[in-house]
Amino acid sequence: MKTLNIIKIGGNVIDNSENLYHFLKDFTALSGYKILVHGGGKVATQLAETLGIETKLVDGRRITDIETLRVVTMVYGGLINKNIVAQLQHFGNNAIGLTGADGNFIRATKRPVAAIDYGFVGDIDEKSVDGEGIGKLMEAGFTPVFSALTHDGEGQLLNTNADTIASALAVALSGMFETTLIYCFEKKGVLIDINDDDSIIRDIDPVRYEELKKKQIIHSGMLPKLDNAFTAIACGVKAVVIGRSDDLGELKQSKPFGTRLSKNI
Amino acid sequence: MKTLNIIKIGGNVIDNSENLYHFLKDFTALSGYKILVHGGGKVATQLAETLGIETKLVDGRRITDIETLRVVTMVYGGLINKNIVAQLQHFGNNAIGLTGADGNFIRATKRPVAAIDYGFVGDIDEKSVDGEGIGKLMEAGFTPVFSALTHDGEGQLLNTNADTIASALAVALSGMFETTLIYCFEKKGVLIDINDDDSIIRDIDPVRYEELKKKQIIHSGMLPKLDNAFTAIACGVKAVVIGRSDDLGELKQSKPFGTRLSKNI
Repeated sequence: MKTLNIIKIGGNVIDNSENLYHFLKDFTALSGYKILVHGGGKVATQLAETLGIETKLVDGRRITDIETLRVVTMVYGGLINKNIVAQLQHFGNNAIGLTGADGNFIRATKRPVAAIDYGFVGDIDEKSVDGEGIGKLMEAGFTPVFSALTHDGEGQLLNTNADTIASALAVALSGMFETTLIYCFEKKGVLIDINDDDSIIRDIDPVRYEELKKKQIIHSGMLPKLDNAFTAIACGVKAVVIGRSDDLGELKQSKPFGTRLSKNI
Repeated sequence: MKTLNIIKIGGNVIDNSENLYHFLKDFTALSGYKILVHGGGKVATQLAETLGIETKLVDGRRITDIETLRVVTMVYGGLINKNIVAQLQHFGNNAIGLTGADGNFIRATKRPVAAIDYGFVGDIDEKSVDGEGIGKLMEAGFTPVFSALTHDGEGQLLNTNADTIASALAVALSGMFETTLIYCFEKKGVLIDINDDDSIIRDIDPVRYEELKKKQIIHSGMLPKLDNAFTAIACGVKAVVIGRSDDLGELKQSKPFGTRLSKNI
């Protein structure tokens, strides 16, 4: 089976043009099929501020009223996405910038209003993810670059968590490709000692994960990230890797990179 | 040879959500292959104003400094393009939103600074237009929707006239498709009497064009539009049609629509 790397980057790469430049260069150098998924970074918040739109976050999730949706559509779908595409083209990587609306690749449902009204936020309809269509695009030589937007099929764009988009794509494509899902974040990996950047746990399988949770080495913020990763693995994704974007070059040199989660160590 | 309609819309369609809705519905109903090219409308100017960026126009062309380029990348490439795509998906048209950077489909050169410095404005490298790649995308079932942005291949996005993008696409694709280029504007077509909306000249060939110019029936603002149209026809485009977006439905009913320019009447 052909290999596919799906890499998700967030603010710590996007907000720093030098980091972004080096990341995109390393991304281009990776062999095999690849997909990039990016979130938004600070630019959307800054633009909203300048326009006098108040940014409301609940548990780190942006409340997306209609004005905020306009901002994220402009910033995620336009400014960030198209500049990444132009930069990748410069490196010789035939990128094509997408939202879930493009090619009807990812549909979502507007999150129902309960205790909190998240506004125009989408929860992905997992069965809607068109792995076959995206696969065809890659086989035609294009590198998909997804921004954190989907649509509901009724003409409405929806702000959608980039981690979730990356994971839904990985699951949908794992039938066709040997798929590795890579989350870039600010640390070198999952650490035994949060104060020691080199105490990286290289491999975790579900058994080890339970041990690490019991010993409280993994706790709080990392738990949902790893829970979601093991769910993706249970759905067919070969491995989920968590690491720092600067170290991505190591992958090319077949060096260990970040923390690798998989079914069996 | 398969037929292809390339349709360009501007502010008078984009700025009016009802016009846009009906246009996109009619566009979806057209048979054969199709491409949509859109300009920017008033939204970019309004956003620039809100952000305190001065809009400078010379002969109707926007001077694109780096701040203005950010605005048009957000508005053309993000807000307008992705909302059009989501709306087309709603109508069952499998649209995919693009700039010239996506798929490296259209490269341009930053306009050299002469008497006027246009800033980040691109002049299309006509040989760069990847008709084959765009053709493959259409044959895979996608409808390309281009915004008025290209890139220079060095990582720089460039603001590029939408009429010119439409015409460059038509020329590049005319070897593979029987291509008609349709410009939507505010009039029903080229008029004999500017005050009589029904005095449409239905067909113009180069001989008739010369007569109409001599009689000063066609003059001023229409001249560059028609000159460019006849250049596209000389380069292989089957016909250029100029008409009003509301009347596009007529095309489907095989009724006469707008003014048709071609080699032979």
